[in-house]
Parts: sequence; structure tokens; C-alpha cells
Amino acid sequence: MAVYTQVSEDELSAFLTDYDIGQALSFSGITEGVENSNYRLKTTTGDYILTLYEKRVNVDDLPFFMNLMAHMARHGVTCPEPVADQHGTVLKTLNGRAAAIVTFLDGTSNNTPSAQRCRSAGHALASMHVAGGDFEGHRGNALDHTAWADLLASCGDAGEALKTGITAMAATRLHDILSNWPEDLPRGVCHADLFPDNVLFTGDDVTGIIDFYFACIDSHAYDLSIMLNAWCFESDGSFNITKSRQLVAGYQSVRPLSEAEISAIPTLCRGSAMRFFLTRLYDWINTPKDAQVRPHNPMDYWTRLNFHHQVNTPEAYGIDRS
Amino acid sequence: MAVYTQVSEDELSAFLTDYDIGQALSFSGITEGVENSNYRLKTTTGDYILTLYEKRVNVDDLPFFMNLMAHMARHGVTCPEPVADQHGTVLKTLNGRAAAIVTFLDGTSNNTPSAQRCRSAGHALASMHVAGGDFEGHRGNALDHTAWADLLASCGDAGEALKTGITAMAATRLHDILSNWPEDLPRGVCHADLFPDNVLFTGDDVTGIIDFYFACIDSHAYDLSIMLNAWCFESDGSFNITKSRQLVAGYQSVRPLSEAEISAIPTLCRGSAMRFFLTRLYDWINTPKDAQVRPHNPMDYWTRLNFHHQVNTPEAYGIDRS
Repeated sequence: MAVYTQVSEDELSAFLTDYDIGQALSFSGITEGVENSNYRLKTTTGDYILTLYEKRVNVDDLPFFMNLMAHMARHGVTCPEPVADQHGTVLKTLNGRAAAIVTFLDGTSNNTPSAQRCRSAGHALASMHVAGGDFEGHRGNALDHTAWADLLASCGDAGEALKTGITAMAATRLHDILSNWPEDLPRGVCHADLFPDNVLFTGDDVTGIIDFYFACIDSHAYDLSIMLNAWCFESDGSFNITKSRQLVAGYQSVRPLSEAEISAIPTLCRGSAMRFFLTRLYDWINTPKDAQVRPHNPMDYWTRLNFHHQVNTPEAYGIDRS
Repeated sequence: MAVYTQVSEDELSAFLTDYDIGQALSFSGITEGVENSNYRLKTTTGDYILTLYEKRVNVDDLPFFMNLMAHMARHGVTCPEPVADQHGTVLKTLNGRAAAIVTFLDGTSNNTPSAQRCRSAGHALASMHVAGGDFEGHRGNALDHTAWADLLASCGDAGEALKTGITAMAATRLHDILSNWPEDLPRGVCHADLFPDNVLFTGDDVTGIIDFYFACIDSHAYDLSIMLNAWCFESDGSFNITKSRQLVAGYQSVRPLSEAEISAIPTLCRGSAMRFFLTRLYDWINTPKDAQVRPHNPMDYWTRLNFHHQVNTPEAYGIDRS
């Protein structure tokens, strides 16, 4: 929600001499992105985003993200395309930070997407999964199901301030999820954070998938379950089955789910709700009161988790087994 | 440095139906502007800035600012041009805030402008003064010299934490300034805040004057003295007479200064240094420690003030009486 590292006009001009993208015409810090400093850059050749990677990003992961975006763009997935300098280098340094320029994408996002947008976004996720089939990079999911028990333990009983008894309830829920976790589902490149603000639209058409900084190798159906949580609940906490039906139908129009993936959907949804509940609880506890970025309330995901624990069949998500 | 009022895609779309500027293609909060919420908006017809006016702006002043920008744009001064809706209305309401759309200008700024840029900026200020000659709006300068004694008094002795004895020294300086204040200089539309970050350039050419939210009727030479303070000191506090010579020469190439204006320059420079010292001191004292926007250190302007008090002639600013 802020620019952490300032870049002056002179610093920008010097930086751009390494590239063949022309002279800067305008340059503004933008408030998108919580973790990094982002600038919108217009040059004589087009529109770009300049990102300076701040402390929370592991610099060792950046080549994976850059290579993945380049791979996706080459395979027709509309996403920011890293721009190489005159020496073919994508990852550079600016003002003491790792930095990269990517292409700017038109489109806007909203937090309450329509069912038709859910369908388009499901289609886009599946296209990304398919396009990732021959991607050779590897990055494990540091926040996969094997990390959740430690994450819960690290929160201690601080969740009690939000709801009495929640620590024990979460432990019970987590035990149930891990006992039923499907280990042998098809795996590959996952976005792992495809929330509505990471998909740009013009009307109902997806114009871009952005923010690949949680991308990793994990099960594709788990990636879909993250979207079921992020796209299909209304602001009052109710589940919109019309949206989930469209989301999954859009996905399956590109990549049909196996019987095993479909059967696993309720457990996967419980798991992805648990993952975001736990990371939000952790941030809720550990974010200083005077931080520029206010943490999300973890209880939104607690509500989702409880919904999924009352559901036992894929049909409850509008998924028809054909 | 932030966006205070969020605008969703749906709220933007509804707002844009009042205008004839097409559909939104992209929309980003930008970090420019300390007082208001600013968004960069790209539509099918071009690039714009959407501003939502926050609490510190007096809504009653907005028609003056909007009419002034429209007047300047009509008279060939490159500045943001307010965009009227289908009913001819420029000032609208969005999410409980007064709001307006203006045209977006290319160009970048820096905090250490070259002498050539000083010349171009002086030329631009004079062009604005001349173009304002037939502008009919009126807004007094709420921060003119008559306001400084109260401002100093309101700071109490809080300045002592910055420099022992500064309260008494400032009172002496202020008395000297007010005793010599030139009351009969030519007056008209002034920008009153033309710092380097409010002038956009491509190379050495001015592409835009922005941020008219201190504009008022005051003496033109006082407006120029604000620029002498803001543009001609180096970051180490030293005065660069090459820059001031170019700034004033650029100004006089459009609007020659009278003998009375030239003679008043040292006193006017002391006054404008005092004005920014006092408002920065006030903000330094009154900004909460956890505020998103860090206040400027007032001592930069105390150093400038001391420079001007050692100077008695316009020649020390590189101004030749012809």
C-alpha cells in the first residue's frame, strides 16, 4: 500500500540507460502491492511497472518468479512480461534493492466479482496450469499443509482474543484436514494466491494475471480450492454456489478435473481456508500497531473454514461428476 | 503519500457514467500528493488523474482552484485541465469526498533541478502570472505575512527542541521582515507552492505545472521568492547563484520585474523562507508520531532564512538591474 524505497528522476534515468525501452515520460509510485515498491513507468516505447523487491521477498526466489512470468507470457497467458536489459538481464539492482521492469497490463479488478468473471478466472487458472506443464523451474510451497501445524503452534493462544476456544477448535480442524489430505493429486505450477485483486479484467474478459510472488509447485486442485475460498464467498460470509459452479466450469473447460481431484475438493477447500486463516492470524498477532499496512481480519477465513467443515460432497460446490 | 479513500471498480464505473471519457482501462492509486487521494486513470479516450479531496482541503476553495486550472489551460499554460461531466460540472462527489477528474500530464520532476531547468521553471511561473492577468476569481493567501506572527506564537517554545534559542531568534527575524515588508508590489494570481516536485519536465522543457491547491492572489515577486528558496539551495544548504540567476532571467524573459520588485527580493526571500519554516515547524510539532506522512524538517528553511538575512542586495541573487 505504499512505496518503501524512493527512486529519483536521476536514478531512474541512469537505470534506464541499461535498457532499450526509450526515455521516461512519466513515473509515479503506485499503491498496489503490499510487500514491494511499485512504480508505474511510461516511456517513449510503452507502459511498464518497475518493482523494487523489499525485505519480505527472498531474493533467491526471484529468478523462479521471473522465469515463470516469461514462460507464461510466451505461452499466451496474459501476465506481466519481464523486460530484459541490453545484456539480457532481467533481475537488476536499484537503490540497494533487487529490481525488475515488467510490461504494464490494462484492466481493473474488484473484490466482489460476478459469476461470469468467476468463470473467466477459472478458465485463466486452468490455462496457467496447462501452460506450466513444460516449465522447468522448481519452488516448493513453503506454506503447504506440512507447514500449518507449526504455524498454528507459533500463534500460541493469541487467537483467544478473537474468539474464546478458537485455539483448540483450530487444532481439531487441522487434525481432521491432515488426516484426510490427498497426497497423490496431479501437481505442477500453481499461482497459490489468485485472489480477485490479482486478476485484471476488461468487462468479463481476463486481461491479466498478476502477482506471482507465491507461485510454486503444488497440486493443481489445491490452487483451484484457493480460488473457491477467495472468489465465491459474499461479504456477509455466505457461500455463492452459482459463482463456484461457474469458476469450476470455467476451469474444466480448459483442464478437466480427475475423479480423485473432484472428490478431494471439500478437503482441499478446508485446507486452503486453514492456510489463509493461519497466515492472517499470524500477521494479525505480529503486525505492529503503527504499521502502514493493516492486516486482514483472520475471522473471515475462520467463517469459510466452518462452512467447508459442514460440507462433505463436491456437489455442494456446484461440481457435477460427469 | 498514500490513498486515504478507496474507490472500487464498481464505484469508478458508476462515477464514469456521468462523463463522456469512455470506459476505464486501468486504475491505480498513486503515491503523489500529501493531502488528497489521487488515482491514475486510463480510459479508452486517454490518461487522467482522479482526485478525492480529503479533510485538509477547504471545499469552498475548490471552485477557485478548478476555475484557475481551466483558465490557465485555456491560456496555454500546461497544467492539469479539469474535465467536465455531461452536465458541465467539474466538481463532483465520490465516496463522500469532493472529487474531480483532470487531464494527465507527461513529465517527471526531481528535487535537484539543473540551472537550465531553473530557467525554464522561472519562464513558466512568469507565463502563469501573465496568463492570470484576466482571471476573475479571488482567494486570499491564508499564509501571507500577516499570518506569521500568530503561526509563530502557536508553536510556543517547541522549536527549542530543535535548536536552543530559536524561538527568540525567529521572533527577531520576523519583526525585521515585517518592518521592511513591501506592501505595494504588483499582485495577481500566484501558485504559492511552486516547488520542484510541482513542475514536470521532459529534458529541460516544462511539460506541466501541477498542484494548484495553495494558489491565491498575492504579489508576483513574492511567488518568485518562494521559487528562489525552493529551487536554488543545494542539499548541503549552500545557495547556488547560477541557478537563481537563471531562474530570474527565465522569469524576466516573459515578465520583466519592476525596480521596486527587484529591490524587494531580499526581504521577500526572507519572508518566504519564514513562511515555510513556520508551517514546517507547526507540522513538525503537530504531526502524530505514527502518521503515514513524515513532516519535513523545519531546519532546512531556518538555514535558508539565515542566508537571506546576511544578504542585502538583489545582486547577491544574480539579479542585474538593467
